[in-house]
This record gives sequence, structure tokens and C-alpha cells, in this order.
Amino acid sequence: MKKTVNVGLVGYKFMGRAHSNAYRQAGKFFDMSADVVMKALCGREENWVKESAEKLGWEGYETSWEELVRRPDIDAVDITAPSNTHREIAIAAAKNGKHVFVEKPLALNSSDARQMLAAAEENGIRHQIGFNYRFAPAVLLAKKIIDEGKIGKVFHFRGNYLQDYIIDPSFPLVWRLDKKVAGSGSLGDLGAHVIDLARFLVGDIDRVTGITRTFIKERPVVERMTGLSGKAAGDAPMGEVTVDDGAAFLAEFKNGAMGVFEATRFAAGHKNALTFEINGSNGSLKFELERMNELQYFSRDDAPDEQGFRTIGATEDTHPYIGHWWPAGHIIGYEHTFIHEIYEFIEAVANDRKTSPDFGDGLKCCQILDAVEKSADTGMWVAVDEM
Amino acid sequence: MKKTVNVGLVGYKFMGRAHSNAYRQAGKFFDMSADVVMKALCGREENWVKESAEKLGWEGYETSWEELVRRPDIDAVDITAPSNTHREIAIAAAKNGKHVFVEKPLALNSSDARQMLAAAEENGIRHQIGFNYRFAPAVLLAKKIIDEGKIGKVFHFRGNYLQDYIIDPSFPLVWRLDKKVAGSGSLGDLGAHVIDLARFLVGDIDRVTGITRTFIKERPVVERMTGLSGKAAGDAPMGEVTVDDGAAFLAEFKNGAMGVFEATRFAAGHKNALTFEINGSNGSLKFELERMNELQYFSRDDAPDEQGFRTIGATEDTHPYIGHWWPAGHIIGYEHTFIHEIYEFIEAVANDRKTSPDFGDGLKCCQILDAVEKSADTGMWVAVDEM
Amino acid sequence: MKKTVNVGLVGYKFMGRAHSNAYRQAGKFFDMSADVVMKALCGREENWVKESAEKLGWEGYETSWEELVRRPDIDAVDITAPSNTHREIAIAAAKNGKHVFVEKPLALNSSDARQMLAAAEENGIRHQIGFNYRFAPAVLLAKKIIDEGKIGKVFHFRGNYLQDYIIDPSFPLVWRLDKKVAGSGSLGDLGAHVIDLARFLVGDIDRVTGITRTFIKERPVVERMTGLSGKAAGDAPMGEVTVDDGAAFLAEFKNGAMGVFEATRFAAGHKNALTFEINGSNGSLKFELERMNELQYFSRDDAPDEQGFRTIGATEDTHPYIGHWWPAGHIIGYEHTFIHEIYEFIEAVANDRKTSPDFGDGLKCCQILDAVEKSADTGMWVAVDEM
Amino acid sequence: MKKTVNVGLVGYKFMGRAHSNAYRQAGKFFDMSADVVMKALCGREENWVKESAEKLGWEGYETSWEELVRRPDIDAVDITAPSNTHREIAIAAAKNGKHVFVEKPLALNSSDARQMLAAAEENGIRHQIGFNYRFAPAVLLAKKIIDEGKIGKVFHFRGNYLQDYIIDPSFPLVWRLDKKVAGSGSLGDLGAHVIDLARFLVGDIDRVTGITRTFIKERPVVERMTGLSGKAAGDAPMGEVTVDDGAAFLAEFKNGAMGVFEATRFAAGHKNALTFEINGSNGSLKFELERMNELQYFSRDDAPDEQGFRTIGATEDTHPYIGHWWPAGHIIGYEHTFIHEIYEFIEAVANDRKTSPDFGDGLKCCQILDAVEKSADTGMWVAVDEM
Repeated sequence: MKKTVNVGLVGYKFMGRAHSNAYRQAGKFFDMSADVVMKALCGREENWVKESAEKLGWEGYETSWEELVRRPDIDAVDITAPSNTHREIAIAAAKNGKHVFVEKPLALNSSDARQMLAAAEENGIRHQIGFNYRFAPAVLLAKKIIDEGKIGKVFHFRGNYLQDYIIDPSFPLVWRLDKKVAGSGSLGDLGAHVIDLARFLVGDIDRVTGITRTFIKERPVVERMTGLSGKAAGDAPMGEVTVDDGAAFLAEFKNGAMGVFEATRFAAGHKNALTFEINGSNGSLKFELERMNELQYFSRDDAPDEQGFRTIGATEDTHPYIGHWWPAGHIIGYEHTFIHEIYEFIEAVANDRKTSPDFGDGLKCCQILDAVEKSADTGMWVAVDEM
Repeated sequence: MKKTVNVGLVGYKFMGRAHSNAYRQAGKFFDMSADVVMKALCGREENWVKESAEKLGWEGYETSWEELVRRPDIDAVDITAPSNTHREIAIAAAKNGKHVFVEKPLALNSSDARQMLAAAEENGIRHQIGFNYRFAPAVLLAKKIIDEGKIGKVFHFRGNYLQDYIIDPSFPLVWRLDKKVAGSGSLGDLGAHVIDLARFLVGDIDRVTGITRTFIKERPVVERMTGLSGKAAGDAPMGEVTVDDGAAFLAEFKNGAMGVFEATRFAAGHKNALTFEINGSNGSLKFELERMNELQYFSRDDAPDEQGFRTIGATEDTHPYIGHWWPAGHIIGYEHTFIHEIYEFIEAVANDRKTSPDFGDGLKCCQILDAVEKSADTGMWVAVDEM
Repeated sequence: MKKTVNVGLVGYKFMGRAHSNAYRQAGKFFDMSADVVMKALCGREENWVKESAEKLGWEGYETSWEELVRRPDIDAVDITAPSNTHREIAIAAAKNGKHVFVEKPLALNSSDARQMLAAAEENGIRHQIGFNYRFAPAVLLAKKIIDEGKIGKVFHFRGNYLQDYIIDPSFPLVWRLDKKVAGSGSLGDLGAHVIDLARFLVGDIDRVTGITRTFIKERPVVERMTGLSGKAAGDAPMGEVTVDDGAAFLAEFKNGAMGVFEATRFAAGHKNALTFEINGSNGSLKFELERMNELQYFSRDDAPDEQGFRTIGATEDTHPYIGHWWPAGHIIGYEHTFIHEIYEFIEAVANDRKTSPDFGDGLKCCQILDAVEKSADTGMWVAVDEM
Repeated sequence: MKKTVNVGLVGYKFMGRAHSNAYRQAGKFFDMSADVVMKALCGREENWVKESAEKLGWEGYETSWEELVRRPDIDAVDITAPSNTHREIAIAAAKNGKHVFVEKPLALNSSDARQMLAAAEENGIRHQIGFNYRFAPAVLLAKKIIDEGKIGKVFHFRGNYLQDYIIDPSFPLVWRLDKKVAGSGSLGDLGAHVIDLARFLVGDIDRVTGITRTFIKERPVVERMTGLSGKAAGDAPMGEVTVDDGAAFLAEFKNGAMGVFEATRFAAGHKNALTFEINGSNGSLKFELERMNELQYFSRDDAPDEQGFRTIGATEDTHPYIGHWWPAGHIIGYEHTFIHEIYEFIEAVANDRKTSPDFGDGLKCCQILDAVEKSADTGMWVAVDEM
């Protein structure tokens, strides 16, 4: 008989909705080694979590994560609550023998992340970190092209993640702008994705030097610090923004490549513009998240007069995951990256095999984030491994 | 208590999967006036339809559409089987008082389509036709911009639908290449979408002159004529391709605009390239399906030195349907157009209100397709209303 | 000692300026077989032509083309005056043994064009027609790729030439809007370029069916009908527009390819948007004049997972003509196409070799234009060879 | 009677050809306050400079710049020889009362640059630095939009200049790879342009932290170190590359904006890819040199549902300089930026008015280059004003 994996999910806002959708959809499009059972959704406010559980397709709900992680009928816990909750919940879940999936960034800092990795390893659980953009078919195609040596030795990585949703000074002080809850601002929220893709595609980073800026230092306080949006009353008191609005850093990769990174929520006109470009001795690759079904590839192997960046539609059934979706040219969207990562998580749990990216990747990302912040404070280059 | 709408779906291949997904997902993202119950999937071969029903989330299955349309526990029938089945099933369903959704093209020809519309109207059912691209937020934004008069009086419509999946002569003789089953080739399959968008955005067409071509006249026969793909054995016998591989036509709209249309399955490099451009006295609009979250808009109202086509990411929560999905810049995909149209169908059924596009729109599209075919035969302009 | 080619130029407006520049510049960037001597500029109004001659670098001027074509010190006559003057001047020049370069379209109709070709051939002169876009390096690269068989058998050509400069009803009745002077409107002015590129790249056309439209039927009369611009007084009388504002036609090429053509001056947002795409059995090519240094190329020879349209910057020194200009990536502009064609003209004259494109190409273009117009009148397909 | 400005030009390679063209063409397209007389071309090897002078349109030639700068019949000296010659020639010319135009970078370092500025000011001459990209109409349009406050307060500048022409290890050790002659590598050659545009558009820079890399440390020596190209014999000895192949730096602008800069000759697929983007509180601007006739503009003033980056073709006759060229949509090329800057230089000389950009701008650029190099050496942030 087919295995089942019983899942409990903490958090039901933006990420909670995306993960719920992934659990619902994975089995409809992929042949899975186990049936996913959406056991319980967990959130603090009963009326909201109950309604969300119904809407999102969960069998039941919990208002206490402490309860959730102890439930014997739960095999895996998925944590999408704000970053400051990750460490405690993940460690508790691991200690209860639950497999754990955590949204990025893994933790508020590398120290917490290290504890989480240790707990996961000590308890022998499967652990995965939510760097969902690794699972875009075009990104996986880039990975394949690089791994096959087609672009040669990498000289340059440049990656940005540009958004503009808090450019208006009247945008309120949501939790993502509070260092205690979010850890950092654009750097940890957006930059973390770029860092992970850089590591995934180019390799580990040796040292960094960075800068961070908070362009708007005070914002109206709202009663409940919501996630991505919210309106404050006209006479709302002002509170301090304690995270960065924008951040940039230079990096030296261990393999000798140079890296240039930037993340900001103040780039007017960019909504979700994660872009990267990689230049190697034999070719280059470019990716833009808002056109996530496309990969740009330049190859010096093409006939000299006919070289140029080619726009590959990564929608052929031979491209990663695409055979499970629609015919060529029929694009997939943002949510599909979650379906792919959850599919892999469930497969790893069901087949008792290694996950990727795991808490180790989450930790390395946190080390880089910490190094950038330290560098921004000190004005010096900071070695990542020392974080 | 909340209403329910019990649905039966005929067909479980490409379109069947897309529709099943839509029925599953609509209620998870939209507040619907009725709960959708996915009652039964219908297909001729029991083992396949049974497996598909489980996989796609249907409560049960039927192997006879005649049975399906008679079932008292079914409120609405959705028909995604090949075009030659539409007429008979739809009329039977209508006569049994079922609301009917039919994939495009509505029928093999306008005569059949007219019978279907008559049956639907006589039986007072809700009827909708699957022109799903109307439901892309960027297309609806185009509609809004046009309806507000922002591009002024329309002079030109040019629309293409380019694919390349049968360019290889060894691609087999699937059902879409058989006139008896498919009605027509690129014209009815692809051109129908462009025609509907032209009607939706610009208005009705007066007359047309067209050309059709079959570039590869014989192809290997496969035992079972599958939909979009298939491999024939090396020694497969050859059979005649009886539909067009490519088609183009000129059109005069009733409002005086000129139209240029093209559809082909022989445009190397294009996978699902439905594109259109509309030029008016005060601006222009452009759309490409493979970048379906974007709309290009040129406005002569912009400051003279600052005019240019602007790429609007139709992913703001104020854009049609987007508020139900993800934050700005987080793109949706092909399948979402189906979720939107099915949402509207269910709402229309639940609230007993008019659908759009309906069989009348399906008929008008068939009239244009017939006019193009007649024109291609006679070399003359053909009036659409005479079809 | 190096040969000289003494040139006389008729016309000093837009095209006259572009040609003058070409004569000045060709020898500075190309090693030419002859020195070009810019002998005389010819125009009807002495004060203007005198000033222009000085400004544009001509040794002297003439106010009578009859004088110009008889001057013994002139080897070649270049005609850029309005289309209705081409026939008379070109034939007179040919009869006087002058080599002749004529701006497109060659003549007001194929009958005139045929006389011009006959006169040129009878008098054994070199004759060239100003289809300058053939000389864009990216277009020549397309030609090379096609001639090498890389895109295989051609199935489709689609080409547009979109402008918007007369979209405003207050734009005056310039000579280009007068059939007696210009021959036709968007069709002959813009469409002629697309037609020539189609012939150059795909081959001859068998038959056509077309449509033309005049969207604005009356415009304010200006005293002097200028070329591309002009303002009419507020109380100017209205005159009839006697040419097409937009035109489109379908074509069958002799080699079996389908063609779709469109030309208009009413496409808001498009300034000089000549675009074409060619789809063959093994690949496709795309070109946009406003990005004239780029060619898009899709090849089915690329690895299956890595196929895509590649943007070739046709600016390598191995690309046609580019070695004479700047390093890779340093783009050339509109005027360079004239320098290239004039370079070729002078080389042909100096070396007594065939020109290309010549009056024969000009005639064939006129035949197609005539066929489209006849088709637009009759509603029937018209065979090009019968024109 | 019209003034004349007699010019002497030092250098006849890539930049020498571009400047010569500019002197020839400026008066043909612009109404100038003075006639330019191309007096003498100066280079060390007589046979080459003589031939070049003829080819490029100069009346005569000199083999000694010391002679050139003393000639009483020369009003202005233009220096396009390698960077290590700039200081000496420019100062000598200034002392002889000649107006001076110098290609970028102004000097090998800020110390030299400071001397040059002092000499220019002491001798009351007009002095200009060859930051030609300021003179692209699209860049000037960006400047206008910024100056009018349309994008608001600037938060971010990011600029790259990517090329790939030395990516092949067999590319020889040309003078641009020799620190003694070129000063620096990608940083001074390419980065200088980005820096100048950043200063032009955003303002002065406070401090920087940077990194430089030499990816290929030895290359084959060629007898004569040529500029952009050259082939070394198969058995050529190897010599050390003493400049950077790639460089990147972070910057703080005095107005609070963050800057990210990168320059490299190792970005496969990029030929001349200077790009920048500027994000402000009310909008953004983007520019790519390989599509230099276009400017991308996002405005938060557009209707909320209709916002997007718009591609402005900066080819309208109301755009800077364009009225002197061709109609809208007829693009200009790389060389035109030189024509514009030389036109402005001659106008400043003829009318005895200030030039822009001048040696002061050249000095500030050198200070930033020096600061980046010092930072790359020390790993610390470096204040620009201290250089």
C-alpha cells in the first residue's frame, strides 16, 4: 500500500497559501511515492486559522505550534511563519522526530541556523529550506548547462532582486520592516534568494564587502504588523524602520569568480525582479524571474558570425518538471516553484533520501547575510566562514 | 446553505487535465457562490478514464457520454473531447437541462454551431465556450483600455498564432490533422483563439479573404490518434493530412478596421505564440501569450518626448483576478486562464446570469472560420454573415 | 591613376541628404575603385538648391535636370526626387549614357518601370534601385544564413512596415499623399521595402490578394507639398487624400511559401518599424529595422533543450561591411545603409560590373504593387507576372 | 565672415578615426558658429600618418606632437593617443594657448589630471574631455527627465560596462593591457564611462569600495602593441598583464544614493554593453548602449493599472540633436555621439563659452578611479575627495 506523509503547516499568509497550494497540487501532477495528507494548519488566532484551514484544504487546525509538533499523526512540519519563529519551532519539531521544511531565510542569524542544522542532524530527520527559485525549470536548465561545462570557467556572477512595494513613505511598519521579527530587510528577504542561486550555480563565497541603506527611517505603525501590505490610519503614530531598505555587496567566490549582488525594495517599476547573469570563459547565462519560463544563453561554441544570447523557452517536456505540466510554450507561474520543491521534499521523506537545499544551505546563506551586515557595519571585507 | 454545482467532464487529455485543474483550484482562490462538486469524468476506455478520474480529482467516471448527460446528479457538462463530438454531446446535454461548457472551436462548422446555440437557448441553459485567453488579466486590461476609449478609434488589428510542433515530417497523423475529427487545422485550432480575441477587443468582422496551406501532405499513421504528440513506428503506413498546416486571412471589421490574421504549426521556434497588436487613433496595444502577464501599451496622451510602448506587468492586485493570486510581479501561468473561465462559468450557473463568451460567440467564430475556408477555396472575399 | 566617378544628384530633401552623406562618406571608410566627385546637386528653386549644394558638399548645382543629364562631366545620375519624376529623368539620363541610381519605388507603376529598364538596357548603363535596407549587415547575414540552407525550405514570410506620422488628421496633404506624385501611399512607400526584402530573401511572388484603406480622406492643403512634415494654417482648405493610409496583402511565393504583408502610416507608436520574420523547415529569422544591428535566429540544429531565438549583434568585423566601421557592439545607424548601397553602385560603375538590386528588381516590385492595387480594386487574386 | 577653428588631431587609430569623422560631419548636419578646418593629423610613423591623414580628410600631418602644439595655424588640439601621452601633450598645448580636447580617461591618475586642469585654467583655454556617451540623445533625455524631478529623489544607480573581446587567452598583450600606457584596464577604459554618466545623471560620489581582478595573467607579446585587436605569432613570448580584466565597486553618492558599478572585458556575449539604471522615489530610467536610441522610463505618475517601463525611441526631432539627423525611428549610431561632442566643443571655442564635460569632470572621474584602485588594494572604503 502506498505510503502517506502527514503534514502540518505553520503560517497561513502569503507563504502559507503558496505551500498549501503546493501540497494540494503536487500529487495531481506528479506520481508521488507517498500520498500527502494535509493534516493541520497552525496559527495563533483560532477564527482565522480555522477559516484558512478550510479554505486552503487542511483537515484540521492548531493554534499552538507546540501542540502541532508533538502530534503523533504528523510526519512533517512546514514552517512559514515569520523568521523569528523558525529556530524554536524547527528545533522542537526535530526533537519530536518530525521532518522539517522551513521557509527562507532559515533563521535570524547564522548562530540560530547552526543550532537548527545541529538539531536536524542529531535527530536524523529530513530537513529542507525554501529556496523555491532553484526549482524553476529555467534555473535548473542553467544549472545543467553550467555543470556540463558549457559556459566554462565562471568569471562573473551578478544578481539583483529588485522590488518597489514600500517606496511610498505611507506604507506602514509591517513585520518585515522590524529587525526583531524579520532579521533583516531587503537583504535577508530578497538577497537571500540571490545568494542561494549564486551558491547553487557558481559555488561557495569566500568573503564579502557590503553596504546597506534605510531610505525611509520612520513609518506609520499599524496595530497588527501584517506581511506584504496594510494601510495605516492617517493619524497613526510613527515607528522606526529597523531593517535595510536596500543592500549591495561585492563577493569573492572560492573558485575565483567575482560577484556583485544587490537587493532593494526601492526600485520603482520592479515588482519581483530577481535577475542574475553568469559569465564564463565559454558562454553566459541570464535569468529574470518575471519571465521565469525563459533562460538566456550565449555560447561561444556557436558559429562565430551567428553568436548571440538565445532565449530558451524552458517549457519543453524534456526540461525539468515540465513534462508534468503543459505542452511547450504554455507557461507555468510563480506557484509552480513551490509545487516542485514540496514534491521533492515529500519524495525525500518518503524514500528516506537526502533533500536539497537543506538546512546546511540555509546556514551558509545566513553566514553570508551575517557577513554582509558585519561588513556594512565595519566597512571591511568579512570572511564568510568566520560567521 | 451554500449551493453546489455538480459537474461532469467529457475528455481527459490535455484539455481535460486543464479543466479538471480549474474545477479543483477555483474554490481555493476565489470566493464562489457555489461549491463545485467534481462528479464524474467521462471517456470511452474504462481503465484509462478510471485512472484519470482518480488522478484528476473526480468522484467517479462514466464511459458513455449518453449516460453522463442523463444523470440527475449532474448540473453542468463540460465537453473537451475532439471537435467532432461537440455538437451531439452539447445538444443532448442541453436537452437534459444541463448547463454546458464547450471547448473551442464550438463545432466543426457554423451549421453545427447554430444547432448547438439553438438547443442551448431553447432549453434555457447556461452555455459557455472555452476561449480561455479572454481571461488572461493582461487581455482583460487591454479590453478595459479599449473600452475606456484610450486608444481611440481602431485602425488595425494584426494577430498571429504560431506554433511549430508538427514541423517534422515524421510527426504522426494525430487526430488534430484529420478534418473529420478536428474540423480544420491551424485555422480552427489556433486561428479560432485569435479570431475570438479580435472580436472581443475590436468587434465583429464583415468579410474575409484567406489562404490555407498543407505543407506536409502525408504523415505516418499511428494506431491511436492522440492529441498533441505521439510517435509512429518506423514502418508505419502513410496517411493523408486533411487539414491546413498554415492559414492567413485579411479581414474588414464592421467598424472599418483592417485585420490581418495568421495561424500556423510551421513557425520554427514558436511554441505557443499567440500575439496581437491593435493600433488606434490614440494609442496601441500589444500582447504575446508566451509572456502572458505583460501588456504593451502605447499612448499618445503621454508627454510627446516621453512616448513609448510601456510593458505593463498585469500582476497588480487591482488587475483582473490577480488579487486572488500572488503579490505583484509573481506571475501566473497558462492554467490560470482556465481557472478564471471556469470560475465565471460556475458563478453564472450559480447566480443564473449570462455567461460570456457563450455559444453565440462560438458560432460567430465558426462563421469566420467557414468564411476563411470558403475564401481559400474560391479566391474571393466572403461575407461572414452569410456563413 | 585612380578612376573618378562624377555624380549628379536630383533632389535635396530627406533622400537627397541621405544620398549626399553617402557620397561623402563612402570613400572615407571604404577603399574604393574610384574617387567619387560630387559634381552637382539639382533642384528647381535656385536659392534653395544652391544653399543645399554647399551644405551637403556638392561642387555646384543645376536647376534643370534636363541640363544635368546632358552634362559631359557627369558619369552618373542619382534620382531622389518624388516618384512621378523618376521615369522621365532616368530615361533621359540613360539615353545620355549616364549610369543611373533611382530611389524606390522605381516608378509610379510597372509600365513606367518597364520603360526605364528597357532604356537602361538599351543604353548599356549601370542602373541601381535604392532598396537600401538590403545593405543592413543584419539583413545580409539573414541572406547568407538562408542561402546556406540553414533555415531549410521556407514556409512563411511575414513582413510589416509600420509608421504613425500621419495619424493626426491635421497633418497636411503633403506630396506623399497625392497619387499623381507618389503613385501610392503606405503601399508604395513602405510596402515596397518589405516586398523587396521578401524577394531578396525568399524569392519571387506568384500572386497576391490585398486590401487598402484611406482612414482620413481629407486633409488641410499646404501651399508647398513638402515631404515628411509640414504644418498647414488653421484655415487651410481641405484636399482629398488620394493614396492608401494602410495596406495589407497575402501572397503566394513561387517556391510555395506563404506571405503576409502589411504597411501603414497609422500604427501609433511605430516610427520606422519595418519588421520581417521568415520560418523555414529548419529555423527562423526575425529582423526589426529600429534595432537594425540585430538579427534574431532560431536554429533547429541547436541542442534540443537549448533552442531559442538568439539575438545576433551583426556588428562583428566579419559581418558584411562592419569591418569598415567600428569594433563589435558599436552600432551603425540608418544612414549607413545608404553608404553601403552607394559604395556598391560606385564599385559597379568603376569596375563595369552588374549592380544589385537593379531596375529589374525595381520593376518586379512595381509589378507586385500594381497587383496588390488591382486586387484591392477587384477583390480577386492577381497574378504578378501579368502586371 | 564666418570664423574658422583650425584643428590638429593626435592619434589615428580607433578614436582618431571616430574624431576625424566627427570633424568632417559636424558641419554637414549642424549650423556651426565656425568652420572647422582639419589642419593636421599627428602620429609617430610618417608613412602611416600620411596615409591616414589623406584617408581621414586632414589637410596635412605631423610626426611630432611637439611641433603640432606649436603651430600658429592651429587653434585646437585633440588628443586621442594612448592615455599615458595625455598629460604631456595637453599641458604643452595649453601652454601654447591651444584649446584642448582629450579622450577619456583624462590621465593615468588624478595627480596628472590635476596638473592638466591647472594648466588649462592658467592658460585660459577651452578644455573638454571625451565622455561621448553623454551626447547620446537618449542619455540627454534621461538627464532632462531627472532634472525636471520626474523620477524624484534618487535611491539607486547601477551601471555596468561589459565587453568580451579579450576573453580568449591567445588575445595578445596590446597596449590597453599595459598599466604604464593605459593606466588601468576595464576600470579606466570602460568603468570611466559609467562613472561619468553616474556623475552626470546622479551627482558626485563620496566614497567607494572596490575589487579588481586579472583573470588571465600572461598573454603573448606582439611586436607592436596595437589597440583593440591583433594576433600574436604562435611562438610569441608571454608577457604580464598589468591591468585589471574586471572591476566592480560600491559607491555612496553625496546625495545619499547607493551605487553599484561593474566593468569587465570578460562577459561573454557582451560587445559594448554599457547599461545603467537609476531608481528614484517617483520613477526609474534604464539605458543600454547597444540599443542607444532607446530609453526605458518608468513613471509612478502613470495611471496605477497602466504603469510599466516604456521604451522611448529617442529619435523624435524634439529630442536632443535628432532634428539634425533623420525622421523619427531612423536610428543613429555610435559615431554620432562623437559628432555631437565635437560640435559642442567647436561651438564652445567659437563662442568662447564653457565646455561640458571639461577637465574638471575628467579629474573627478580619475579621482574615483584612483579611489577604487586604492580600495581594491587596501580592502577599505576610500573617500574620493582625498584622491
